[in-house]
Amino acid sequence: MKATGPIPAGYDSIDGELAIGGVPASALASKVGDTPLFVYSSDHIQARITELRAAMPKRLALHYAMKGNPYPPILALMNGLVDGFDVASGGELELAVAAGVDPARISFAGPGKRDRELERAILLGITLNCESEGEVTRALTIGARLAKTPQLAVRVNPSFDLKGSGMKMGGGAKQFGVDAERVPALVKRIIAAGAKWQGFHIYAGSQALSADAIIAMQAQTLALVAELTEAIGTSPPKVNLGGGFGIPYFPGDAPLDIHAVGLALNASLNALPDALAGSDFCIELGRFLVGEAGVYLTRIIDRKISHGETFLVTDGGLHHQLAASGNFGTVIRRNYPVAIATRYGAEPTEVATIVGCLCTPLDKLSDSAHLPRAEVGDLVAIFCAGAYGASASPANFLGQGPATELLV
Amino acid sequence: MKATGPIPAGYDSIDGELAIGGVPASALASKVGDTPLFVYSSDHIQARITELRAAMPKRLALHYAMKGNPYPPILALMNGLVDGFDVASGGELELAVAAGVDPARISFAGPGKRDRELERAILLGITLNCESEGEVTRALTIGARLAKTPQLAVRVNPSFDLKGSGMKMGGGAKQFGVDAERVPALVKRIIAAGAKWQGFHIYAGSQALSADAIIAMQAQTLALVAELTEAIGTSPPKVNLGGGFGIPYFPGDAPLDIHAVGLALNASLNALPDALAGSDFCIELGRFLVGEAGVYLTRIIDRKISHGETFLVTDGGLHHQLAASGNFGTVIRRNYPVAIATRYGAEPTEVATIVGCLCTPLDKLSDSAHLPRAEVGDLVAIFCAGAYGASASPANFLGQGPATELLV
Repeated sequence: MKATGPIPAGYDSIDGELAIGGVPASALASKVGDTPLFVYSSDHIQARITELRAAMPKRLALHYAMKGNPYPPILALMNGLVDGFDVASGGELELAVAAGVDPARISFAGPGKRDRELERAILLGITLNCESEGEVTRALTIGARLAKTPQLAVRVNPSFDLKGSGMKMGGGAKQFGVDAERVPALVKRIIAAGAKWQGFHIYAGSQALSADAIIAMQAQTLALVAELTEAIGTSPPKVNLGGGFGIPYFPGDAPLDIHAVGLALNASLNALPDALAGSDFCIELGRFLVGEAGVYLTRIIDRKISHGETFLVTDGGLHHQLAASGNFGTVIRRNYPVAIATRYGAEPTEVATIVGCLCTPLDKLSDSAHLPRAEVGDLVAIFCAGAYGASASPANFLGQGPATELLV
Repeated sequence: MKATGPIPAGYDSIDGELAIGGVPASALASKVGDTPLFVYSSDHIQARITELRAAMPKRLALHYAMKGNPYPPILALMNGLVDGFDVASGGELELAVAAGVDPARISFAGPGKRDRELERAILLGITLNCESEGEVTRALTIGARLAKTPQLAVRVNPSFDLKGSGMKMGGGAKQFGVDAERVPALVKRIIAAGAKWQGFHIYAGSQALSADAIIAMQAQTLALVAELTEAIGTSPPKVNLGGGFGIPYFPGDAPLDIHAVGLALNASLNALPDALAGSDFCIELGRFLVGEAGVYLTRIIDRKISHGETFLVTDGGLHHQLAASGNFGTVIRRNYPVAIATRYGAEPTEVATIVGCLCTPLDKLSDSAHLPRAEVGDLVAIFCAGAYGASASPANFLGQGPATELLV
């Protein structure tokens, strides 16, 4: 038997079934007409943002990193809940604009922006988080050609990283941003060229559950901002402190203490030098806002025994749940939180392995979990499916195609 | 500096550029009008199949496992080159039929076939490689309802695996097939129910480079077939011996010795008991037929230095090359074969890391490789991109979308 991750708060049972947004799983599947499906709870997202806003300093703005989940109804919902959007490609940019997001509230980061993406962003007045001297040069050239002033922030590659984070985006040689010591000269060049300098973007890592690690990273980030500001001699209009707020996926994971993070950040912001008194600060979160608000529901197609072990074969799989299968950014496969949605809350009575329908041994959704006995037709729920699920999986693998998505 | 995998044979230089199918890389990119792109060489595929046919026993049929690459022009090409197609979903089935493949030459394996997929296969007369007793029951029920005789083979879960293979599909508890000891009873039930029993499907693993390992697996497979045939008392019309033929991806990998495999298999087939004299034998290959025939071409958008290391940032990435980024079925990331396509054959003069355009540290295409100095605008080639590239990567991640594919 292997442990499974902790089921997020807010998922209750109705008539013995997992309910999402007050609707039982089987009713959601019937509504969509097919399985598998992703169900996202707007209540969950709103509650998360309310809780986060209460914990964070009043001065801090909240951005949505839409790479976490670019499903258009979620973008429309977020547009009324957050202060800005961070996009990572021209494709995301168009999705955000189509969802009604004001371009003035959009910033665009990413190490490989093409000329046509820079051009579109500059025309719309989107802030570019520039990743290199070369990108700044291209943006200035395009702005001159279009007779449009580019809005340019500089992404800084910090010399520190986010301790214990799932992915490190700083600390040493990286493809992201400009090494801190070269940033002052670059900002001076941007200002001298007549572009609108929009400030700094500093993103040191993601998916950390330790408040201490995030507090340390944010303190280092603010110290770096103060140092760069002094070297430049001009105050940054905006400072994006990045993200890094993780969610529990695996056995033993505990939620991040956002109250501790908020208190420390408040103290740090209050202690900033005068040169930063007029700067706007934000954090940029994706997974933390939407990850626990999503559930992947897939139906059991076969129940079989092999060498004494029980396999529940579903109509879903890693083509929608690459990370849950252990094939995306993880070295050791561990179980996400999982349940038999149509027997939610029932006592576990057997150990079963839940697999997808793909003809590959990689397609494992849950390994040797302790579950209520499930039969063909039952629905399986994989939790923490709200971020990096549908959009971060190879949907067309083995001719399968995407799952339906639903915001309730 | 880190080593890169061996570049497959058959890729020459024209005017200092990598040529695929006799056309330089930059001309291919111009033809498509954008980068990144996958280019597949029909010459390479045909040469591979010719060589393979020459090495294998005359009696052995060759099937294409289209999960390796389902690009329609490749399916059309393969239709004239191989004896059968193996599909892994209803989606692949429709692609094969649309490419003109005769349903009588198609078999369908996969542990999670839905009723509607079984129904479509039975109506078309496709052979189902049944993965469980439950699937046989469903197929028989559907056949009776449709008044159509199902063509049913049984996929056997063998007690052995393919030593040294990238993915093991046998040996112990698995979601694939029926444990060998339960197969005779199941086959007898299929025959008694009036379905057309089509034989066995035995697939023990994939991506092996050791001829000895494949020879041992094939010998074990044939011994198991003989044993099962004796227990059943009826000869199998067809026997699918699976695949497992690997291709070199990584430093130190050497090509599989198919001549040794063919000689041993010929001897094994000649030594079979009389009960198997009339049976048709086939192998089922995907990656081995198409993997080395494909190249992924992506353009350098930025060249940057961070902490003394050189990064070449491209317009491609793991959204098309998940396996090359080290995020699909591998524990330790190693470099695929890679080259600067527009400086092909030039002397390496620097160490550079090639990354994609995605805003994630996972998006690494080649780590610290020794390469000719490349500039913005140069094309990078990632080899071994013909299988499990375009279709096995999260194309929509970060709003990117699929790459163009081209068969030359």
